[in-house]
Amino acid sequence: MIIDRIRREDLRNKIMSADEAASFIKDGMTVATSGFTPSGYPKAVPLALAKRAENGEKLGLTIITGASVGDELDGALARSGVMKRRYPYQTNKSSRNAINEGKVMYQDMHLSHVAQFINYGYLGKINVALVEALAITENGGIIPTTSVGVSPQAISNADIVIVEINTSQPMELEGIHDIYMTEKPPHRKPIPIVKPEDRVGTPYIPCDPEKIVAIVECDIKDNVRPLGPIDENSKKISNHIIEFLEQEVKEGRLPKNLLPLQSGVGSVANAVLGGLVESKFENLTCYTEVIQDSMFDLIDAGKVTVASGCSLTPSEEGLKRLHENIKHYAKHCILRPLEISNHPEVARRLGVIAMNTAIEMDIYGHVNSTNIMGSRMMNGLGGSGDFTRNAYLSIFTTVSTAKNGDISSVVPFVSHVDHTEHDVAVVVTEQGLADLRNTSPTERAKKIIENCAHPDYKPMLWDYFKRASSGKFKHQPHIIGESLSWHARFLETGTMKIK
Amino acid sequence: MIIDRIRREDLRNKIMSADEAASFIKDGMTVATSGFTPSGYPKAVPLALAKRAENGEKLGLTIITGASVGDELDGALARSGVMKRRYPYQTNKSSRNAINEGKVMYQDMHLSHVAQFINYGYLGKINVALVEALAITENGGIIPTTSVGVSPQAISNADIVIVEINTSQPMELEGIHDIYMTEKPPHRKPIPIVKPEDRVGTPYIPCDPEKIVAIVECDIKDNVRPLGPIDENSKKISNHIIEFLEQEVKEGRLPKNLLPLQSGVGSVANAVLGGLVESKFENLTCYTEVIQDSMFDLIDAGKVTVASGCSLTPSEEGLKRLHENIKHYAKHCILRPLEISNHPEVARRLGVIAMNTAIEMDIYGHVNSTNIMGSRMMNGLGGSGDFTRNAYLSIFTTVSTAKNGDISSVVPFVSHVDHTEHDVAVVVTEQGLADLRNTSPTERAKKIIENCAHPDYKPMLWDYFKRASSGKFKHQPHIIGESLSWHARFLETGTMKIK
Repeated sequence: MIIDRIRREDLRNKIMSADEAASFIKDGMTVATSGFTPSGYPKAVPLALAKRAENGEKLGLTIITGASVGDELDGALARSGVMKRRYPYQTNKSSRNAINEGKVMYQDMHLSHVAQFINYGYLGKINVALVEALAITENGGIIPTTSVGVSPQAISNADIVIVEINTSQPMELEGIHDIYMTEKPPHRKPIPIVKPEDRVGTPYIPCDPEKIVAIVECDIKDNVRPLGPIDENSKKISNHIIEFLEQEVKEGRLPKNLLPLQSGVGSVANAVLGGLVESKFENLTCYTEVIQDSMFDLIDAGKVTVASGCSLTPSEEGLKRLHENIKHYAKHCILRPLEISNHPEVARRLGVIAMNTAIEMDIYGHVNSTNIMGSRMMNGLGGSGDFTRNAYLSIFTTVSTAKNGDISSVVPFVSHVDHTEHDVAVVVTEQGLADLRNTSPTERAKKIIENCAHPDYKPMLWDYFKRASSGKFKHQPHIIGESLSWHARFLETGTMKIK
Repeated sequence: MIIDRIRREDLRNKIMSADEAASFIKDGMTVATSGFTPSGYPKAVPLALAKRAENGEKLGLTIITGASVGDELDGALARSGVMKRRYPYQTNKSSRNAINEGKVMYQDMHLSHVAQFINYGYLGKINVALVEALAITENGGIIPTTSVGVSPQAISNADIVIVEINTSQPMELEGIHDIYMTEKPPHRKPIPIVKPEDRVGTPYIPCDPEKIVAIVECDIKDNVRPLGPIDENSKKISNHIIEFLEQEVKEGRLPKNLLPLQSGVGSVANAVLGGLVESKFENLTCYTEVIQDSMFDLIDAGKVTVASGCSLTPSEEGLKRLHENIKHYAKHCILRPLEISNHPEVARRLGVIAMNTAIEMDIYGHVNSTNIMGSRMMNGLGGSGDFTRNAYLSIFTTVSTAKNGDISSVVPFVSHVDHTEHDVAVVVTEQGLADLRNTSPTERAKKIIENCAHPDYKPMLWDYFKRASSGKFKHQPHIIGESLSWHARFLETGTMKIK
C-alpha cells in the first residue's frame, strides 16, 4: 500500500523503519515538522527519538512546528527530555509543564512570523524537515495530510527531508491543498488571493527528491482532542455575537453574508461558529486557521460555501464523520500553508471577522491570551494576532470568571498583554458584549465593566476605576501600584475576591 | 495668485474668508482634516473656529487627522475647548494636557487603521473634510501640500469639503504625491506596490467638485518643530544599529543595500538615520511615514535613492533647504496616503527595517510607546505598530534612563504595552543592543539587562529577575505584586531608585 503512495519510483528504496529514519537526527539539531493542531504531524519518528533518549542516549533538539501537535511529538519529546527548545505554539500537557518548569526554552510567536523567520534564517539552520505525507508525487512533491502548517518552509530550508507516509489518512484528501509560498524581500510579490475560495498554488509541496533521505510507513491516527459539549455560557457568548453581527448588517457596516469568518481553536470557538447554524445568515465563507466540527455542521446546513484553513481539526466523532463524507467536505475546504492562512496581507484584504478567545481582558481593552497570572504559559498566542490586527472586526471572547468564580476574567490591568487596546474592537462574555470602537479608554472601561464583568466583581472594578479616575492623569487612569494586586491576591489567597 | 491655483473655473466663486468657511462647521460635527505631523494641515479655518468658541459660542467637535498636526489646529482647538474628541494621534502640548485632564476623549490608534475605519463607518458620520491644498485641478482633484495623511478618506466620506489653498506651499510640490485608495472588503484588491519607488495612483486626490463648499486662501506656513541637536546618546544608539546591520549583511540575512528603512519621528530617529550618512551602505531606500532633515542629508550624500513617506517633516532649517532645492528633493521623494505609507500589506511585502522609539521596555521585550507611568498619554502609538509587526526587522530604541536618571527605561514590567514580546526583534539603548530573535523570555531578559540597562539599575533588574526565576513558573517569571513597583515608587518618591 505504501508503495502506491510513492509515485516516484526511485524514492521507493528510501523506505525504512522509524528507528532507521530517526538515526539521521542527531543531538543539537533543529527539526522542523509538519503539523498544525493535532493534525498531520509526524508520529513514528518522534516516538523513535523519544525511545533513544529513554534508552540513555544524549539527545537534545530544537523543534519547530506550524502550531500545536499531538502527544506522539510534543508529549513524547517533552517527557523524554529530547525537546530543549520549542517554537512557536503548543497545547500539550507535558510540553506545557516542561516550559513552565524552565526545561524547554519556548518562544511564543505570531504563527505568520514563523514561516518567514525560517526563510530569513532567524531561527537558525534547519537540519531536518520531518513531515507527514499522504503521498509523494512523480516529481518528488509532498502531498500533505490533514494540515499544511510550516511544511513548505521546513522542506525548502532543511538539509534533509524525512517523510512519514500515513496510511490512515484517506487518499481522498488529495487536491484539498493549495500550496503557495512567498519569496523573500526584496523579491516578494502580491499574494493573488482576493476571495477565500481562490486557489493560487499547487496541490503538493515542491521538494527536491535528492533531499528525501528516508520514507517511513506509519498508520497512527491523528491524536484528535475531544471538544467540550456546548455549554450555557458558550451559547450565551455565541448569541451575543450573532445579535451584534445582525445589527452591523442592519446598519450597513457589514454585507448580508458577512465577511470571511476566522475563529480560534477550542470548545468556545467551536460553539460560537456552531451558533451560526441556527442563524439567518447564508452564503458564509471562512478564512481561518482550523476547521473544526461546527464547520462541518455549517457546510451540511448549506450555510458555509467555502472554508479556507490550515488544518482539519475535528474531534474523534468529527474525524469519523470527515472520513465517511470526505469527498463532500473536501469540495468545500481548502488547506493552505500557515504563511498564507494567517497572512496579514490576505486577512486585511478579505476583511476577516476575527473571533478569538482571551484568558483575561482589562477594563481598557487589553487582552491576555497566553500567560496565567503573568507567568504561567497556557498554550501560546497562535494566530490570534495575525487575524486580530488585520481584521475588519476583531472580537475577543471569554467567560467572565474562572476557577469557580475565584478569578475574574475582567481585571484592572491584565497580567500579560498579547493584544493591545489598539487591536481589540469588541469583547464578549456570557454577561454581554462591549463595542469598543470609537471610544476613549475611559469610555471603554465603563462599557466593559457594565456589560462584560461578572456581578461578583463589578463593584470592585467600579471602585478601582473611580479611584483611579480621581488621580491626576485621566486618559487611561490607573493606580499603578494596585493595578496587578488582584493577581497577587489570587496567588496569595486563592481568590481575587477580598475576603 | 489663488485664482491660478483653482484650475476649475466654476469653483472660483467658492472663495471666501476663513470665518465664512468656518460657518459650515456646527456644534457636534465630526471634522476630518489633512495633516500628518505639523505638515499640510489646515490653519486658517481652525483658527476661525477657535475664535468662535472664545467669543462664547457653544462649539464642540470631533477632530480626526492623519496624525499630529500644528498648533493652529490641535493647540487652538484644545485651548478653546472646541476639541471634544480626537483621533488618532497628537503631539501638541495643549491637546496632550486636555487629554490627560480628561477634557478630550482620545483614541490612540494604529494609523493604518484610521483610513479603513473611516471607510467602514466605525468613526461615525464624517460631516466635513477640511483640507489644505496646493491647488485644485480642472476635474476638481485636490493636490495636497506637504503631507497626504487621511485626506483621501476624509474627502470621499465627508458630506462637504472645505479647502484651504496655502500659497506659502511651493507649486513645485505638484507631482510628488501618489494617491491610491483601497476598496472596502469584499472588493479589495492587492496593492500593486512591489518597490518603494512604485507609483500606482494619481498625483491628486479625486474629489466630486459639488462637495466643495468653500475655498479659503491661507499663507500661514507649516508650524515645523525644531529637531534637537544630535547628542552623544543618539550617536551611540545609531552606531549600535549600524554595526548590527553590517553584521546582518555579513551573515547573509540582509542584502548589501539593506531593505527599505522606516524610521519614527523625532530627534533620536533623525539621528539614527543621520548616522547612515557616514556608513558604508549605498543605494538605500526608505518606505516610511515622515521624511525628516536627515533624509535630505542621505539624498544629498547619494546614499538614498528613493524616500517614500506620508509627509515632509523638516525642521525650520530643513524647510528652508527643502524650498530652495525643491525640484531636487522632489525627484527622490513620494508622498502617499497614510493608508498606503503605513499599510501592513506593503510593509510586509517590502520587508521594511522598522526603527521606532520606546518610552520604556521591559526585561522580556514588551514596549511602552505611549503612556508614562501607565496613565499619562505622551503622544500616541502612531505608525509604530503598523511597521513593527510587519517588519523584516523590528528595532526599538530608547535612552536607558530618563529624568536625570530617576527613571530606568528598562523595567521589570512596562506600565503600558503597545508592542508585545511577539513583535520586538531588537532593542537598543546607548548602553548596547540586544538581539531578541530566536530566544525564550528568560534568554531575552539576560540579554536586555546585560546589554541595554543603565549600570545604576542593572543590579536591581538582576535581583528582580533572579528572585522571580526562583518562583514556580519559569517561562516568563514575574513577582506579579512587585512587577509595577518601580513605577509606583517613582510616583511616590520621585525616583525608581531605592533610597
